[in-house]
Amino acid sequence: MLIVKKFGGSSVANKDRVMNVANRIIEDYKAGHQVIVVLSAQGGTTDILLEKAREITDKPSKREMDVLLTTGEQQSVALMAMAIESLGYPAVSLHAGQVGMITTSTYSNARLESISRDRIEMELERKNIVIVTGFQGINKYDDYTTLGRGGSDTTAVALAASLDADRCEIYTDVDGVYTADPRVVKDARKLEDITYDEMLELASLGAKVLHNRSVEMAKKYGVELVVRSSLTRAEGTIVKEECKVEKMLVSGVAADKDVARIAVVGIKDLPGNAFKLFSLLSKKSINVDIILQSVGRDGTKDISFTVHRDSKDEALEILNHHLERLSAIRVESDDNVAKISLVGAGMASNAGVATKLFESLYDAGINIKMISTSEIKISVLVNMDDADDAVRAVHNGFKLSGN
Amino acid sequence: MLIVKKFGGSSVANKDRVMNVANRIIEDYKAGHQVIVVLSAQGGTTDILLEKAREITDKPSKREMDVLLTTGEQQSVALMAMAIESLGYPAVSLHAGQVGMITTSTYSNARLESISRDRIEMELERKNIVIVTGFQGINKYDDYTTLGRGGSDTTAVALAASLDADRCEIYTDVDGVYTADPRVVKDARKLEDITYDEMLELASLGAKVLHNRSVEMAKKYGVELVVRSSLTRAEGTIVKEECKVEKMLVSGVAADKDVARIAVVGIKDLPGNAFKLFSLLSKKSINVDIILQSVGRDGTKDISFTVHRDSKDEALEILNHHLERLSAIRVESDDNVAKISLVGAGMASNAGVATKLFESLYDAGINIKMISTSEIKISVLVNMDDADDAVRAVHNGFKLSGN
Repeated sequence: MLIVKKFGGSSVANKDRVMNVANRIIEDYKAGHQVIVVLSAQGGTTDILLEKAREITDKPSKREMDVLLTTGEQQSVALMAMAIESLGYPAVSLHAGQVGMITTSTYSNARLESISRDRIEMELERKNIVIVTGFQGINKYDDYTTLGRGGSDTTAVALAASLDADRCEIYTDVDGVYTADPRVVKDARKLEDITYDEMLELASLGAKVLHNRSVEMAKKYGVELVVRSSLTRAEGTIVKEECKVEKMLVSGVAADKDVARIAVVGIKDLPGNAFKLFSLLSKKSINVDIILQSVGRDGTKDISFTVHRDSKDEALEILNHHLERLSAIRVESDDNVAKISLVGAGMASNAGVATKLFESLYDAGINIKMISTSEIKISVLVNMDDADDAVRAVHNGFKLSGN
Repeated sequence: MLIVKKFGGSSVANKDRVMNVANRIIEDYKAGHQVIVVLSAQGGTTDILLEKAREITDKPSKREMDVLLTTGEQQSVALMAMAIESLGYPAVSLHAGQVGMITTSTYSNARLESISRDRIEMELERKNIVIVTGFQGINKYDDYTTLGRGGSDTTAVALAASLDADRCEIYTDVDGVYTADPRVVKDARKLEDITYDEMLELASLGAKVLHNRSVEMAKKYGVELVVRSSLTRAEGTIVKEECKVEKMLVSGVAADKDVARIAVVGIKDLPGNAFKLFSLLSKKSINVDIILQSVGRDGTKDISFTVHRDSKDEALEILNHHLERLSAIRVESDDNVAKISLVGAGMASNAGVATKLFESLYDAGINIKMISTSEIKISVLVNMDDADDAVRAVHNGFKLSGN
């Protein structure tokens, strides 16, 4: 069997954890499997490098930042290869250039374009455990690039897809995907399996187990993922195309506290004004989520929407700058909000789900500010202070703990 | 003019020094020159990386050690490029793979084989200041290698040779080559210039300004070197093929305190025994320096020689193991010794130099244990305790301070 195992920065943060991971890798190798390991930079390393750059300049070029940051993974793969060799097993570390991890040229946020199988296959034939740098690639100029958030997960899935791996295991500091954040909901239940689509909704909604890009790629190439902990032996959660038929209607509930609500008030009701508004934002790569349009006074309308909190200031600047062009009166914003989402593949065909959601929140005395629905998800915007109560109320309302 | 400037680890050890070096680089760029900069890892970085590896294993593979260590230079070139850009000038960092710095496969001690000019020339044409990682290369497997001691100097000279640079400046923490170690001899004088051959003798004799490999390469390709300080504006010392005609007979005096003397006593006087002895050592790559053969008792002979102190134990082990084969009685060693050497291109044609050297040491009451001479050098072995006095006595005897 060919297995790809990805370990995040906290799983290799120090000597003891490196040795722990080395031993888990060797277990699979001893069982006769071919093993490819993808590593992030050791926990803390990236912060040290960012600080070194910040000391020199507030605005480092993205190209040089990538040159600097890629050293983090290069260090962790070298140390892991040493650790495995010190335990008596053959290992070889490879960086992005050596595995032909070709990306676009967008430094700091590059997209994978292709992977060359040659070097990895050669090392596997030589019976080596192959340790590959996550998060990084090279562009057509032979410059280092980095893949942005969730980059190492993406590297692992891409390798698994490219090499037809039998399994792709994503090791993290939680032991699977839960029906809700266990820190908020005490009786949250670990899911045995979940579909790609459900995972995509959960990932984008603040369940920070897997990054969307890696799940999208896994779905596209049919790579079955296992999310599990590097610190325990628990089974983990499988992410795949279809789950058991007897699966519950609802998989989980997630809270996203990194949102902000923006309202453009008093837009003159002319055709094209809404289009203008959102095209201004998309030009600056600002993603808009829940959208609500309501009728204002004197033949005007108000448009409200949510954005990632980091984009709020930029969005406000753009909108205020173009207020006249949009024929609007003013822009308001509120970042004291959170988005609560209920996710489940069986939801679309069951009209009662939305009703039960609203009822659960009503019973808990929680006010809903905005609503958005999709095939497998219902999201509501609530006050930040209500976020955890809302998650508990919904989790309880849908009996997600299984009790 | 095309200028190659090399800065060592202490010259870029922290933010202030990086900015200081960035400013000096920009001065040349503003004067209209093309500038290539070669950097070592920031002072201290290599020690941190070595410690990380040591925590994991006592015997890391040399391949993985090179993968780990090359991150040091990669960090310093990225930071320097950021620093130059932050001051408003264009810069680009390149690692060994990008400049096609091809080496042999001897990890941790690789030899340069070729350099590709394409990428650097392209970046120079684009008016970029080009910052290149020193100390490292890639082998034919596309693996990182490192060049061993003095590696970054070698990178700089190789780039200067390959690109026909007009100047190759080696910046260090001393401001040139002196007639003796200024910490030992208060009135030591800085040399305006020195020949490659003299520099080679001085380098191998403990004047740790330039490593032999870089001087050998500079001599081979006729690259004129300038040794100067990154912290002062002093002129530095030029290293070149021929110096001024009116040059002094003697260039300098150096002490090498990293030597040990070994004596093989009571060797039966048969043909081939001396050959056997030295071939045993050379098989293990142990370099032998001053050699002395003397007649012992009962038709036997004693052979004494010096080795680098780090090789003493290995040499003793080999010799004791083959004592019978060498028909010798026993092996003795002494590492309480130092080698004092007088270097000068004009020496060979002047018989009085040796006489004056012995006289200076005799006047100072210093006992000579062994003597060795070459075209441009006379070395003597003295007790370690006498080393500094010997340097001062010789420096004074030859009036090297110029007063």
